Amino acid sequence: MTRHALVRPLAIAAAVSLSATLAATTVIADDGLGDYRDRFEPLPHLPPIPAHNSLTDEKVELGNMLFFEPRISASGVISCATCHNPALGWSDRIPRAVGHDGQVGERNTPTVLNSGFLEAQFWDGREPDLEGQALGPIEADIEMAMDLDMALERLMEFEIYQEKFAEAYPEDDNPINKDNLAKALASFQRTLNTPNSPFDRYLRGDMEALNEQEKRGMQAFVDTGCIACHSGPALTDSNFWAIQVPGSTDVGRYEVTGDEADMYKFRTPTLRNVGVTYPYMNNGATETLEEAVAIMGQEMLNREFEDETIADITAFLHTLTGKMPDFEVPALP
Amino acid sequence: MTRHALVRPLAIAAAVSLSATLAATTVIADDGLGDYRDRFEPLPHLPPIPAHNSLTDEKVELGNMLFFEPRISASGVISCATCHNPALGWSDRIPRAVGHDGQVGERNTPTVLNSGFLEAQFWDGREPDLEGQALGPIEADIEMAMDLDMALERLMEFEIYQEKFAEAYPEDDNPINKDNLAKALASFQRTLNTPNSPFDRYLRGDMEALNEQEKRGMQAFVDTGCIACHSGPALTDSNFWAIQVPGSTDVGRYEVTGDEADMYKFRTPTLRNVGVTYPYMNNGATETLEEAVAIMGQEMLNREFEDETIADITAFLHTLTGKMPDFEVPALP
Repeated sequence: MTRHALVRPLAIAAAVSLSATLAATTVIADDGLGDYRDRFEPLPHLPPIPAHNSLTDEKVELGNMLFFEPRISASGVISCATCHNPALGWSDRIPRAVGHDGQVGERNTPTVLNSGFLEAQFWDGREPDLEGQALGPIEADIEMAMDLDMALERLMEFEIYQEKFAEAYPEDDNPINKDNLAKALASFQRTLNTPNSPFDRYLRGDMEALNEQEKRGMQAFVDTGCIACHSGPALTDSNFWAIQVPGSTDVGRYEVTGDEADMYKFRTPTLRNVGVTYPYMNNGATETLEEAVAIMGQEMLNREFEDETIADITAFLHTLTGKMPDFEVPALP
Repeated sequence: MTRHALVRPLAIAAAVSLSATLAATTVIADDGLGDYRDRFEPLPHLPPIPAHNSLTDEKVELGNMLFFEPRISASGVISCATCHNPALGWSDRIPRAVGHDGQVGERNTPTVLNSGFLEAQFWDGREPDLEGQALGPIEADIEMAMDLDMALERLMEFEIYQEKFAEAYPEDDNPINKDNLAKALASFQRTLNTPNSPFDRYLRGDMEALNEQEKRGMQAFVDTGCIACHSGPALTDSNFWAIQVPGSTDVGRYEVTGDEADMYKFRTPTLRNVGVTYPYMNNGATETLEEAVAIMGQEMLNREFEDETIADITAFLHTLTGKMPDFEVPALP
């Protein structure tokens, strides 16, 4: 595994040129399901980049270091990568997050993969973007439990962080600050995308990329109404819907707004890589994708799916698993 | 970063052929310090491989997965890589290890780098080899706090582990067992070596690999007697010596043997990569290498080193930092 800073620029460049190439691909055959395909969008290689946080190699490289940096946690051993573990689909594959002093949180850890495509962050959407999200887990008592000013002080102790922050934010006199910490982490996360899943290749014209069962699943996904909320490139509308899954008493977005209308509402999760980001639901109490599909049919669509339909939709959902992103385990100071 | 299983065999092959090449290198010049160089040994690319645990690509690949596998911990979030963090010199860079439920251990985490060269494992040498060491932290209440049988049961739930254990131990009917878990972890750790440090290149004939101060440090290291215990390719005799560093009441090896003669004895730590494996001493209470050198002079050599001597020896110790090993963050099931 290389640690060249050069890897990252190449990665971004490759992503851009490759997406351009693929966008140009023309449909070379037809299986008669064009009306279904038209309901979906392939995943771009990069998400929208906000005007206030341009995506630069310097920020991405710094964000990569910070994402794996455990010394911005109170214990000194918990980093973003502890719960968003690259070996585990950039999540943790346990029902609910385990953080500082082994405290167990209320909710299942969302993957950071493709999180740049979401228009609301956290299960309850309490932050609109990755810049707003990035600092939350560092400060949360049950996660990294770290005072942000102390985290910044720890970073300032390292010459390499002074250099990297200065390179990433050359216009700032004191670049090691909360905003820049958040912007660097957000920039790195925007590079963690999984394009070119079998379904993306199918949408781009490779009729062989999905088998018959997977195509039946795609049709059922549309016909039964899953797509009403799971739409767009990340298969989420980034909107909030009331749901109480088995075992959950979590009031969801109501905690954020205090508005009765938001009781039990949660943001629609992305279905990208859902096959490798088990367990499921806000409380992580659902172990298998088949169970998750059945529960969503009951709770959101008021339908009892046939076993065959569940199998077909599950097969389709597995085609949403893309190539895991290249990244570097940084050499930290 | 690639995850090809092929990377590993190539790595081993390269290591072997490369070490053969380098062993053949002849001294091309002389700085008159041959008598000093003769007291040292360059680090081989692989440590001795025990007859009962041949080093195979299958075991190394499996061990690589297991090393990063948090689900063999009680919390489901602590893996070997949590404290032996590849981003932090395969250690944790905090004074004492933080484990299950945030419990803080008694001792500083030793790096796993080059640990295959040590003839005694743990600070107190309670295990002779990596096979004996591997399971300890999984079971330790303050580390991963996991019952070994439960750990094995969790692994058995994954088809991929059934396959990988069967490939690694084709002669076993039930390959997922404690011995094979230990052997796979030990095999992976034996590939985590850091040859070709500046000092290794110097010992192999590159007279320019060390500057004048570093060479003065090497001479002081020999002349003052550091080399009496810090000898051999890993710069440790793997023997036990009584020492009470500032702030430590740890009785060390006495806990293992119950022999009064072993009170306060600890295994001589390797000095390989000591420049990147701070903080120092059994209690991790010593922050800088300069302090560590001064303390060792006082405690073990009964000398008050001059500041210049401390600076020279410290400069020499930094030449023992080699190239960090290639490895893969595995894609876990």
